[in-house]
Amino acid sequence: MHRVKVRVVEDALDANTTIADANRADFDRANVAVVNLMSAPGAGKTTLLEAVLGPGMDGVRAGVLEGDVAGSLDADRLAHLHIPVVQLNTDGGFGGECHLDANMVRSALPALDLEALDLLIVENVGNLVCPAEFKIGEDARIMVASVAEGQDKPLKYPLMFRACELVVVNKIDLLEHVRFDLDKFRYYLDQVHPDVHVITTSAYTGEGVDELRDWLAAVPARERRTAGAAV
Amino acid sequence: MHRVKVRVVEDALDANTTIADANRADFDRANVAVVNLMSAPGAGKTTLLEAVLGPGMDGVRAGVLEGDVAGSLDADRLAHLHIPVVQLNTDGGFGGECHLDANMVRSALPALDLEALDLLIVENVGNLVCPAEFKIGEDARIMVASVAEGQDKPLKYPLMFRACELVVVNKIDLLEHVRFDLDKFRYYLDQVHPDVHVITTSAYTGEGVDELRDWLAAVPARERRTAGAAV
Repeated sequence: MHRVKVRVVEDALDANTTIADANRADFDRANVAVVNLMSAPGAGKTTLLEAVLGPGMDGVRAGVLEGDVAGSLDADRLAHLHIPVVQLNTDGGFGGECHLDANMVRSALPALDLEALDLLIVENVGNLVCPAEFKIGEDARIMVASVAEGQDKPLKYPLMFRACELVVVNKIDLLEHVRFDLDKFRYYLDQVHPDVHVITTSAYTGEGVDELRDWLAAVPARERRTAGAAV
Repeated sequence: MHRVKVRVVEDALDANTTIADANRADFDRANVAVVNLMSAPGAGKTTLLEAVLGPGMDGVRAGVLEGDVAGSLDADRLAHLHIPVVQLNTDGGFGGECHLDANMVRSALPALDLEALDLLIVENVGNLVCPAEFKIGEDARIMVASVAEGQDKPLKYPLMFRACELVVVNKIDLLEHVRFDLDKFRYYLDQVHPDVHVITTSAYTGEGVDELRDWLAAVPARERRTAGAAV
């Protein structure tokens, strides 16, 4: 049974790559950079987005695609930002998909005016396994880990911490109340993804929020440079 | 693509049910009750198990099956309890399975002396979606939610909060440091699973640990009563 299952999943991953490439072509045509924001449930992705996007991004026009199994709680929370927000639910079919794939993202694109955006942030379903396996046509991936989850997560979910360009250590304000050794976390992270960039943040105290905003705001510029270099 | 995918998954779920029934028959023969312990990554399942199983369970002989994508960190942490602990990794194949299924659990059974156990606790992979979809032959399911994850989780992952007999609200010691309203959480939980039993716990302060231990210790007795009634 296992052998068959792996084959089926690999077929699905092939199909996913094809559709991710089509998304990528659409994003390039519209000159929009795309960030895939991933984490475990409750790591604080939406609260971070509120903090980062609230004050605006210095001329970078941002939009958000919210992925959730059910409901539109996260999209509703972002409504006050007055930026384009689209909610995508994965609960059609059986009990719900545990990740966004390229085709789900593709199905949401008609609801977004890509030409009006420089940066699209896709907030994935909270999960530390499957989102890392399904590319959606993004330029960059961010993995958010909350200190409340424990310092051992890079070793327990290695692919997720490897398949990203930035690791955000969030809820850093809770550090004194939980058993989380930041040095040990970075040591474990180094074993699965040496030299990945790390930003520590707290949406409550504001720590690291400007740094994260700057990192996000630079993604479109990086993309244009890369595209320019490729021509 | 989506329609095909759902059919494949439903086939996989059919196969899973067949194997879960075989596990169930083995558990019944050995007179061992089985609990499926589920949560998001970092909700504190292993730390709770250390707190609950450490002092012993009043004559209930317990064992643990640890499910993780990679590594044996959790099994190592339980080694000092001197009870049977088996580590099961799901990272064969592609990037790792995001849940335990009945066949994975079945593959681990030869490593366990079921006759020497009254209670087997299966710690699932940290994930709020797929573990709820795959029965493993268990008698009861526990869903652990940490207050650090936020009060909205029952609405965002409804199947997980519905497919359990007990909801444990863990890390209650962090309540004053996070935005989590316990009444609101219970109100949301009531919308997806009315009247489910709830225990609030903190492995650090010990709150609720005795209550959780009593609940777990009563599972084998409940199972024997049910089995007796069925004869």
